[in-house]
Amino acid sequence: MIETIEYRPIGVVHSPFKTPEGAPIQPPGGEDAEATVEIYPDYAEGLTDLDGFSHIILLYHCHRAGTPSLMVTPFLDNVPHGLFATRAPSRPNPIGLSIVRLTGAADGILYIKEVDILDGAPVLDVKPYVPAFDLRESARIGWMAERTEKMAATRDDGRFAGE
Amino acid sequence: MIETIEYRPIGVVHSPFKTPEGAPIQPPGGEDAEATVEIYPDYAEGLTDLDGFSHIILLYHCHRAGTPSLMVTPFLDNVPHGLFATRAPSRPNPIGLSIVRLTGAADGILYIKEVDILDGAPVLDVKPYVPAFDLRESARIGWMAERTEKMAATRDDGRFAGE
Repeated sequence: MIETIEYRPIGVVHSPFKTPEGAPIQPPGGEDAEATVEIYPDYAEGLTDLDGFSHIILLYHCHRAGTPSLMVTPFLDNVPHGLFATRAPSRPNPIGLSIVRLTGAADGILYIKEVDILDGAPVLDVKPYVPAFDLRESARIGWMAERTEKMAATRDDGRFAGE
Repeated sequence: MIETIEYRPIGVVHSPFKTPEGAPIQPPGGEDAEATVEIYPDYAEGLTDLDGFSHIILLYHCHRAGTPSLMVTPFLDNVPHGLFATRAPSRPNPIGLSIVRLTGAADGILYIKEVDILDGAPVLDVKPYVPAFDLRESARIGWMAERTEKMAATRDDGRFAGE
C-alpha cells in the first residue's frame, strides 16, 4: 500500500483574493475576477496548444486550508454534512479543483477569468476542459438542491482557514 | 515557495482494468464498467450524505503512469501536443480526475459506473459533482475538435505506462 505521495508545484496562482475571507466560493461566483497562473520555466513547454481551449481545469494545493473535519457545515447550508459531500477546502488532501476560463497564454503565463483561487496557491496540474469527458447532464445534487442559486452571492467567511 | 507537498491516500480503487493496456481513456468510454472505491475507515464518516449525488469527482494518483514528457502524442491524435493540452496520465504530478456515476454507498464503499480508473489507484479526494460549479457549456476544445467522437472506441495502448 502506498503510504505517502509527494508532488512538486509546477507553478503558482496570482489572484486578487489574498485571504480566504471574502473570496468567491466557486469559479462562477468570481465572474469578473481575473488572475494569472505562472507556470515555472521547466514546465512551460507543456502549455503548447493549450490556448485552443476556452476552459481549463486547475488542480492546486489549498495552502490556506485549516485542519480538516469529517463533518462540516458548508457555506451553502447551516447544518453539517459529510466532508466528501461538500467542496470545503479543508480536506485530508486539500486539492482544489477549479474550471476557469482561459483568455490567453504566453511565455508560461496563463490569463484566466471566473476564478475563486487564493493568491499564492501552488499549482499541481493543468488539464484542458473537454465537455465530452467532463460534462454530465442532469446530475442529482443531494443536499445542494435549491442551494446552489446562493453560490454567486456567497463569499468565504474564513470558516475553513488555517493559520 | 513550497517545494514539495505530501498527501496520503484516503482509499483505493478496485476496478476491472488491471493494466493500462486496454483500459478506456475517459470515463464515458467505460460506460458498462463497474468498480468500487474503498475509503479507509479513518475517513468513512466523511462520506455522509454523498449518496444524494448521482455523480462524483474522483482525484487519484495515476500509479501506473511513466515518466512525463512535456510534448506527447495523445491517444486521440497522431501528432504531438503540449502535455497540459492533453489528458495523458504521465504528468509532472500524475493526478487523475474522473467524473463517475455513483450507484451506491455503504460501509465506506462507493459503487461507481462509467469508470476509466486502473485497479489499485490510490484515492486522494472525493468531491460531489455539481453542475452549477463544474459544468461549462460551449467550450472550445482546440486540437480535440472532431476527435472526441473517437473516445468511446479508443483504448489505452500502454504508451504512457511506467514499469
